[in-house]
Amino acid sequence: MNVDETVQAVRAGNRLALARLITQVENDTAVGRAALDRLFPFTGRAHLIGVTGSPGAGKSSLVNVLAQELRRPTSEKPDRRVAIIAVDPSSPFTGGAVLGDRVRMRDLAGDPGIFIRSMAARGALGGLSAATAAVSQVLDAAGFDVVLIETVGAGQSEVDIARLAHTTLVVESPGMGDDIQAIKAGILEIADILVVNKADRPGVENTERALRTMLELAKNHAAADAWLPPVLRTVAVQSNGVLELGQAIEAHREYLQRSGHWQQRDAERLSTELDHLIQATLVARWRSTLPAGALEAALVELAQRKLSPHQALEKLL
Amino acid sequence: MNVDETVQAVRAGNRLALARLITQVENDTAVGRAALDRLFPFTGRAHLIGVTGSPGAGKSSLVNVLAQELRRPTSEKPDRRVAIIAVDPSSPFTGGAVLGDRVRMRDLAGDPGIFIRSMAARGALGGLSAATAAVSQVLDAAGFDVVLIETVGAGQSEVDIARLAHTTLVVESPGMGDDIQAIKAGILEIADILVVNKADRPGVENTERALRTMLELAKNHAAADAWLPPVLRTVAVQSNGVLELGQAIEAHREYLQRSGHWQQRDAERLSTELDHLIQATLVARWRSTLPAGALEAALVELAQRKLSPHQALEKLL
Repeated sequence: MNVDETVQAVRAGNRLALARLITQVENDTAVGRAALDRLFPFTGRAHLIGVTGSPGAGKSSLVNVLAQELRRPTSEKPDRRVAIIAVDPSSPFTGGAVLGDRVRMRDLAGDPGIFIRSMAARGALGGLSAATAAVSQVLDAAGFDVVLIETVGAGQSEVDIARLAHTTLVVESPGMGDDIQAIKAGILEIADILVVNKADRPGVENTERALRTMLELAKNHAAADAWLPPVLRTVAVQSNGVLELGQAIEAHREYLQRSGHWQQRDAERLSTELDHLIQATLVARWRSTLPAGALEAALVELAQRKLSPHQALEKLL
Repeated sequence: MNVDETVQAVRAGNRLALARLITQVENDTAVGRAALDRLFPFTGRAHLIGVTGSPGAGKSSLVNVLAQELRRPTSEKPDRRVAIIAVDPSSPFTGGAVLGDRVRMRDLAGDPGIFIRSMAARGALGGLSAATAAVSQVLDAAGFDVVLIETVGAGQSEVDIARLAHTTLVVESPGMGDDIQAIKAGILEIADILVVNKADRPGVENTERALRTMLELAKNHAAADAWLPPVLRTVAVQSNGVLELGQAIEAHREYLQRSGHWQQRDAERLSTELDHLIQATLVARWRSTLPAGALEAALVELAQRKLSPHQALEKLL
């Protein structure tokens, strides 16, 4: 398939063409770039939902039932299509091989309105965050109404990835929320909806209280018209609370569109993406102009402590 | 104090001068850079020990008792001095204000051979990883024998920070290790020593077994002379197992020096640091050459979907 045919097939809902294009985009090939340029005018419609939180909080199970919930027809949209990007910055596996995917496949396989993709650090040139942005654009242009971007942990790279989203869910579970280190201020800052999953376990009140206390602290700095993140309980494995979660997500989408934040987050996202591209390109261009061996010689002098890092920089530039 | 006086004071063990210089280095000031250039020839001696692992595994408590253990005189070194850098990528607070520091201060304050510093993302220009590298160089040149670099979580930025170290400890606790998502392949790859902290809790055998199984899998790819990461049990709050942990750290240091990996990790660390500096400098220089408003105009066209990110990049460069 050439670029034209790929773009057409992806726009027409061809899943194999979509999966292949995503691989091209992940590997930053010429075909991937050309197709993305052609698809870009069709982006900006999908609701991007980031899902992050402590490891072990049950994010994958929650994303599975949430995907099914978001598939349910609404009066506006009789057929909502949902894509899931499972992002694992610490995994070497990309494509469909991430741990836990077998469970996921069993629950969701066979629904033609759900598309699942795993992404890992090593498959992504130019950084995982950049690759995730590009892949979510492909899915957006392919007509998915919702793109769920799920991260494995809650570190800085997960926060960066969650920032791609219009709506960010932070998922905790009882026992984890009690630990002040698990509910980081940085994570709460990006949360639009807080979910206490595994809410049938003991300690759910403590976790909820800890989250609400942190939110109260954060609220003091919030603007008058700001969105107040709700704290919801779910038991993903029993699908409990998932209807309410879907409603909260919809309420947040309406808030974003009403307040102008939808456009604002879109602009911020594109600005970040452009920054990353510029950075990677400048470094690549500069490297190509460097005399052979110059960098290696500077590294030797660095290791011998004859040059400091800043002195090496000045010598090279 | 001018640069000369600062360098002299830091080398002479003046703690106030050290704390002030670290702030200068974090903020990447001219004084900070100049002092770091002058101090750089004195670096390369300290043993850098990274401590990472799941949130809630008790890393801070473990680092506290470990610092006290590493202070104990050896036959070679009657007075070992220990610095702690507590790195929190998700916290806005830098200096001495990170959560949990009050506990730390209570345990360690008053020991003139221990120096503690908290670092956060927002205090660090040019990236937290770069700032942590620079601060650890200051502490190294100031004559600390050991620099403990503790991270809050176990995300990609924590992995990047742990890579600064000669020896990386990965700390888990019972109940977390059972969860396959908590013991990520990426984290295990960087572990030189695995610690199951809170080992008096139920489930310690399961966690230990899970870690050993993951290690066995990793070992298949290891070179014949590779270091085999030990799995140790500790109860930090009772100082149990900390003597053995200190011995394992010492054994790893001897291995690194015997095998040449000490030099190799040093070279890799400096190479990474130089890469970051080059990248930041290239972007700053390019921005200064850009016509006023060009970037803003491109961002508007991006948001309107008139240009794709790659097309905007080509237009700007």
